[in-house]
Amino acid sequence: MARVVVDVMLKPEILDPQGQAVQRALPRLGFDGISDVRQGKRFELEVEGPVDEAALARIHELAESFLANTVIEDFSVRVDNNEAHAAGAAK
Amino acid sequence: MARVVVDVMLKPEILDPQGQAVQRALPRLGFDGISDVRQGKRFELEVEGPVDEAALARIHELAESFLANTVIEDFSVRVDNNEAHAAGAAK
Repeated sequence: MARVVVDVMLKPEILDPQGQAVQRALPRLGFDGISDVRQGKRFELEVEGPVDEAALARIHELAESFLANTVIEDFSVRVDNNEAHAAGAAK
Repeated sequence: MARVVVDVMLKPEILDPQGQAVQRALPRLGFDGISDVRQGKRFELEVEGPVDEAALARIHELAESFLANTVIEDFSVRVDNNEAHAAGAAK
C-alpha cells in the first residue's frame, strides 16, 4: 500500500486571510522572524496496487478535478516514500 | 528567505470525516483503488534569516503550541528545499 500526498495551496496572488491571521498572531505570541504564512490543505491518499505513471496520472486528474479549485489553488502530487510525517510526529 | 513547511494531520486513531467524505465520493466519480483518504493542513512559513537548528527548534515549538492541537493532531516540520509544490503546479 503506497501513500500519495496531494498538497493544495492558494495561488500566490490570492489573498490568504487564514495565513495572515496566523502570521500576525506570531509576534504577539513571542515568535519573530516569520515574514509570511500561507495555509493550505494536505490530502494523504492510500493507493491500492502499484503507484506507477498511470496511477499518478489518474491521481493528478483526480486532484485537479475534485481536490483543488484550480481557479484559485495550485496543487502538487507526490509519492510519500520517506514517511517524513511519521518521523516528525515521533520527535 | 527560506521556506519551512509544517504539516498537521489528525492522528491515525482520530476519525476524519472530511477525508472519509472524499474517499467515499471517489468511486462515484470514477476513481477506484483509493482505500483511504486523510485530510489535514499544510502551513508554509517564510523565515527571515538562516534556517539553522535553533530556528527549526523555535518553529517546532511554534507548531506544537499554535498550529497543531497535539491532543488529536500530529505534525511535522521540514525545510522546503526542492520547491516541489511550485514544480507540481507548473505541470
